[in-house]
Amino acid sequence: MPLPPLPAAAAFEGGCAFADGAFCALADAKISLFDWGFTRSDATYDVASVWQGAFFRLDTHIERFFASLASMRLAIPYSGAELRRILHGCVRGAGLRDAYVAMVCTRGVPPRGARDPRLAVNRFYAYALPFVWIAPPEKQAQGIDLHVSERVRIAPESVDPRVKNYHWIDLVQSLFDAYDRGRDTSCVVDAQGHIAEGPGFNVFMVKGGVVHTAERGVLEGVSRRTAIELCGWLGIPLRVQPLPATEFRQADEVFLTSTGGGILPVARLDGVPLPQFPGPVSKRLQAAYWAMHDEPACRDPVDYGA
Amino acid sequence: MPLPPLPAAAAFEGGCAFADGAFCALADAKISLFDWGFTRSDATYDVASVWQGAFFRLDTHIERFFASLASMRLAIPYSGAELRRILHGCVRGAGLRDAYVAMVCTRGVPPRGARDPRLAVNRFYAYALPFVWIAPPEKQAQGIDLHVSERVRIAPESVDPRVKNYHWIDLVQSLFDAYDRGRDTSCVVDAQGHIAEGPGFNVFMVKGGVVHTAERGVLEGVSRRTAIELCGWLGIPLRVQPLPATEFRQADEVFLTSTGGGILPVARLDGVPLPQFPGPVSKRLQAAYWAMHDEPACRDPVDYGA
Repeated sequence: MPLPPLPAAAAFEGGCAFADGAFCALADAKISLFDWGFTRSDATYDVASVWQGAFFRLDTHIERFFASLASMRLAIPYSGAELRRILHGCVRGAGLRDAYVAMVCTRGVPPRGARDPRLAVNRFYAYALPFVWIAPPEKQAQGIDLHVSERVRIAPESVDPRVKNYHWIDLVQSLFDAYDRGRDTSCVVDAQGHIAEGPGFNVFMVKGGVVHTAERGVLEGVSRRTAIELCGWLGIPLRVQPLPATEFRQADEVFLTSTGGGILPVARLDGVPLPQFPGPVSKRLQAAYWAMHDEPACRDPVDYGA
Repeated sequence: MPLPPLPAAAAFEGGCAFADGAFCALADAKISLFDWGFTRSDATYDVASVWQGAFFRLDTHIERFFASLASMRLAIPYSGAELRRILHGCVRGAGLRDAYVAMVCTRGVPPRGARDPRLAVNRFYAYALPFVWIAPPEKQAQGIDLHVSERVRIAPESVDPRVKNYHWIDLVQSLFDAYDRGRDTSCVVDAQGHIAEGPGFNVFMVKGGVVHTAERGVLEGVSRRTAIELCGWLGIPLRVQPLPATEFRQADEVFLTSTGGGILPVARLDGVPLPQFPGPVSKRLQAAYWAMHDEPACRDPVDYGA
């Protein structure tokens, strides 16, 4: 499908979307109430970030998005290079130096009365918003208080968590619990009581200098992958295996990983202060995470035009 | 919130929606790409039917919708009586004698950068479409071929199936399997291999004159409830308990229940003909289901205007 010309710099200042093949204002980014992407949550997406004028690991996000599409039997009418151009266009149109950039594909609107997902024409959307933090910087400084919920994450046997999806009712319920208790965010467990993930992030703990995170049943987040790679490069011992919630509560340090903030040290679990905040391992990984943003291989600078 | 005047009869012929407090054409029924109802599938809904000019058991659907709202901590700015009026308005606006009528509530669009679901203003939508069949009448006559999938329905510990929701990726995947194999629709199992439900319907079997259906882990459908009540009234033995897929394959008769068609006899399981199609128990229940549509207590006639 031919691409429209990129929007002028900051033509949609503060936020720019791409919908129905054209760049537009956020307020015009809408989907049909009848799109199966809504009425069946039959959709996949990915989120990349722009920091100080450049995308971070954009190729990795685009690669994962295409893998998610294939797994869901969804397709977009754009190549990886064209998708990259659209995402750049959204950021340029929004005129944002720091941005949250999403790409979304929905199953589409079915022919009248049809129930066969193969009959819908898939739809593609993208948008750039101001950078979204899992917790705002002032809250990070003050210290994130994480609620460890007993709610059970949707099992990987039902919905493959490696395919980024909008099946979040369990996570939303755990968020309500967290806010009701005065906590800042939440994570949920799997059916065996192992730590799974939170709304928009993966969860890590540090115990005796060893970094631990869940092996399966979670989104294989790009920031999670970055943290895992950094452990390798920095020589920090790492165990990727099931992590019982009871062990997790005995952590020395805890941190979250997300495109929405990178590596985010946690100060308290359900109100109980962790022994170390921010802990030495979390701080080392956090510094390395942001340093990686200067590496040419990870940077894809946005052309903001004149 | 004050209600707008009802649309003129067939003002939106063939389909009418209610969005942002006003009646409109289906093409104008859109939700924001940023509504958490889409990006978190944080929404609930219900579907009633209109048959030959009257709603069937509308009060039951409205009651369940309000129970779903409460469970999800969602709210709409309308009373039950106002909701009823809006739904009637959609049908009148569409000018449909037989209709599929949906009511939907989404979490809403969050304030910029917010992650707390309590901060969003919930949104309400409704619409009336031409009656949707789980399988079209010609397919029903020919005989529905049901694929019994080994895919596992999202567990009730993660998402309460009694609260009607759009978490359907597992069901959609089973539909792909069904269509790929040349079947007409599909049902999935729970983690223990018991029959759960299908995309938009509950599943029943008849064995030795006894009707069986799943006890938990499924939507407690209004048509399912009607079938259960009819068994009581007609003196047909009924067991509501876990139903192993292996036993299910030995059924004498199988039928589906859905607002999209009431009681739908199945002819084949994965291509293998069932001993009885349409079986005597299924036929008796089906006849009683449609006869109930004439009972004044179940009927809520639409005022189509002049």
